[in-house]
Amino acid sequence: MARLVMKFGGTSVANLDRIRNVARHVKREVDAGHQVAVVVSAMSGETNKLVGLCREASPLHDAREYDAVVSSGEQVTSGLLAIVLQSIGVDARSWQGWQIPLKTDGAHGAARIMGIDGAFLTQRIDGGQVAVIAGFQGIAPDNRISTLGRGGSDTSAVAIAAAIKADRCDIYTDVDGVYTTDPRIVPKARRLDRVSYEEMLEMASLGAKVLQVRSVELAMVERVRTFVRSSFDDPDAPQIGAHGLPPGTLICDEDEIMEHEVVTGIAYSKDEAQISLRGVADKPGVAAAVFVPLAEANINVDMIVQNVTGDGSTTDITFTVPATDYDRARAVLAAATDQIGAHEILGSTDVVKVSVIGIGMRTHAGVAAACFKGLSSKGINIRAISTSEIKISVLIDAAYTELAVRTLHSLYGLDAA
Amino acid sequence: MARLVMKFGGTSVANLDRIRNVARHVKREVDAGHQVAVVVSAMSGETNKLVGLCREASPLHDAREYDAVVSSGEQVTSGLLAIVLQSIGVDARSWQGWQIPLKTDGAHGAARIMGIDGAFLTQRIDGGQVAVIAGFQGIAPDNRISTLGRGGSDTSAVAIAAAIKADRCDIYTDVDGVYTTDPRIVPKARRLDRVSYEEMLEMASLGAKVLQVRSVELAMVERVRTFVRSSFDDPDAPQIGAHGLPPGTLICDEDEIMEHEVVTGIAYSKDEAQISLRGVADKPGVAAAVFVPLAEANINVDMIVQNVTGDGSTTDITFTVPATDYDRARAVLAAATDQIGAHEILGSTDVVKVSVIGIGMRTHAGVAAACFKGLSSKGINIRAISTSEIKISVLIDAAYTELAVRTLHSLYGLDAA
Repeated sequence: MARLVMKFGGTSVANLDRIRNVARHVKREVDAGHQVAVVVSAMSGETNKLVGLCREASPLHDAREYDAVVSSGEQVTSGLLAIVLQSIGVDARSWQGWQIPLKTDGAHGAARIMGIDGAFLTQRIDGGQVAVIAGFQGIAPDNRISTLGRGGSDTSAVAIAAAIKADRCDIYTDVDGVYTTDPRIVPKARRLDRVSYEEMLEMASLGAKVLQVRSVELAMVERVRTFVRSSFDDPDAPQIGAHGLPPGTLICDEDEIMEHEVVTGIAYSKDEAQISLRGVADKPGVAAAVFVPLAEANINVDMIVQNVTGDGSTTDITFTVPATDYDRARAVLAAATDQIGAHEILGSTDVVKVSVIGIGMRTHAGVAAACFKGLSSKGINIRAISTSEIKISVLIDAAYTELAVRTLHSLYGLDAA
Repeated sequence: MARLVMKFGGTSVANLDRIRNVARHVKREVDAGHQVAVVVSAMSGETNKLVGLCREASPLHDAREYDAVVSSGEQVTSGLLAIVLQSIGVDARSWQGWQIPLKTDGAHGAARIMGIDGAFLTQRIDGGQVAVIAGFQGIAPDNRISTLGRGGSDTSAVAIAAAIKADRCDIYTDVDGVYTTDPRIVPKARRLDRVSYEEMLEMASLGAKVLQVRSVELAMVERVRTFVRSSFDDPDAPQIGAHGLPPGTLICDEDEIMEHEVVTGIAYSKDEAQISLRGVADKPGVAAAVFVPLAEANINVDMIVQNVTGDGSTTDITFTVPATDYDRARAVLAAATDQIGAHEILGSTDVVKVSVIGIGMRTHAGVAAACFKGLSSKGINIRAISTSEIKISVLIDAAYTELAVRTLHSLYGLDAA
């Protein structure tokens, strides 16, 4: 017997037929003797509809009221799934965030989970009742409903799994796992059986849209084994796949992964924009003059590269910002021109960040060199580079995205046989 | 300065344009210096949609889950109205039933209000903040959301008004008040400026669909002055009408009504069915044999008439039941045939109950006689009669509904000049 959290997203509960399909997945686990908590999103389209109503009501709306309105989507799904489960003989009840309680901070609209009292839930689950939990929502210190921000249901699921000490958190989604790269770009991409928290975090941050970044961070911190699988599977098909699990990807501690490939996957992100400052005086304090105003404007800066120019008196600074903040960042820099004293501010939104990710990199030299050489051989110019212990990211022209991803995927031996 | 509760039903909040109109009504009262609590229903169509989803999920669904699903409609409206009010400069916040808390019993799906802690609300309202309250919902002893049954938002509004000691509860609806009878049948029907709780209770019970019966009962018990008016009025039009109030009907203590007409209104109800038992043995215990099984089946019996037949050995019993319970009632009686020993069970759903209502009846003789004579003069046969201190009801063939209502309306001098 295991204790499981099962999370189903919006497309998995889009209508009552899909909710009945979810119920069969749940019943299978209950029939196998497992204790189950289910976390559900709003029916697909509902959240967008509710957000649209709030915006139409007022462009500048009170986040507390937004939360009251938008959280109703998950409330509906949790009740409907409980009804369907009962109708097929599974003891179940719905739980709203405030009933658990799942306590958050007061940042309405994008709240962070502060703590979950798992006592009530655990008591019911121990008694054999399935807990159907409305994802994405909690209760703030002001005793009002809070929401966790878009995609927050993944985070709810992982947090619940930690609170009730679940053996595994199964994320049912519209894909059947995490792939070595985007299969739309590389048809030979392979599904990974296992991936470490650290690798998944890089892959989630870098544009693989399978799991929300915050949920992976939380899974890593709380060591919640998280399994990504498809909700479109036949619920009654045999469940034994690789490593004793059905088809899908297990995100787990690296100790659970026997053989590490050097490189696990290739990710890319089009949500970046490049800004370059030319001819900046090379003197102490100039970096602060550039980056402090951006930080004060709440703009996240990534991939900072600084080159000294020929004569040593000036320097070029290149960095990336989220594409959505590009115009704002340029305006902030223009306003700070006097402090920076740059000759020229250049920029482009027509760039992409391609990343090579793998825990094996830690112990293998030459991974970065191979990347640069491979891209160079295809005539792809690198605009900026950043690296960490387990990843190499390069910024290139967006036009080369597919070529770069395919080249690197093949280069590191990730193509399926 | 007065303290007001303003209640808006589903058609009054059907979309954001209508919600903006509601906000203008609220702003008018706030600008006039009043303290305001608003009670809202779900946007029209939403409750039916949510109820439909529950039924589709399972015909026999858990009422606790039904409540979780269906209460979301009011939750959405309360948040949206708070947003719109803020956008026009009115300080406002939404309140869910569990936040107030509005405590109910555990009869999920049709809960009764047990008590409202008005302290939080009053504190905020005293501070000048408009409380936007999700109607129709509360919290049950199991710490789960409860709903009050269809039309429960009227009851919420009156209960809130009692809890915060409001000077008046304004019910904004799609008609502009309570009429002497249905204006679709009698174009000369007049709007009543004032009507007593007792009269309104009879009129509400008897088919005037303006206010839910329970809300009138509660208003009568708690002495909540309740004012019915149209939400389609121009919010900015002058507000002074009869008795210092805008056009509408004030439901109030009879002491507040200076001159009582003998008859206040004519109501009718098509939701009745007639059952007649012929040739029942006229012996002790036979009424119990008929009505105990019906009571055990939760069928409400009304208008009981018993006639002794010619030879005195048998009797005929006629009574009415709600039309929706007609088939069930006949089945119950058929099963109890041995105990009853009736010759024949007859029945009809093609009947209507027409009622003459007026507190003035108490002190005026001959009101009933005039009714019977008037109907007789038009050739209308009376199938059954029941009376109370302030009403006379007759059961007649449905085909004569309009003729009977028009005849009585005219007979008692209710026609507009």
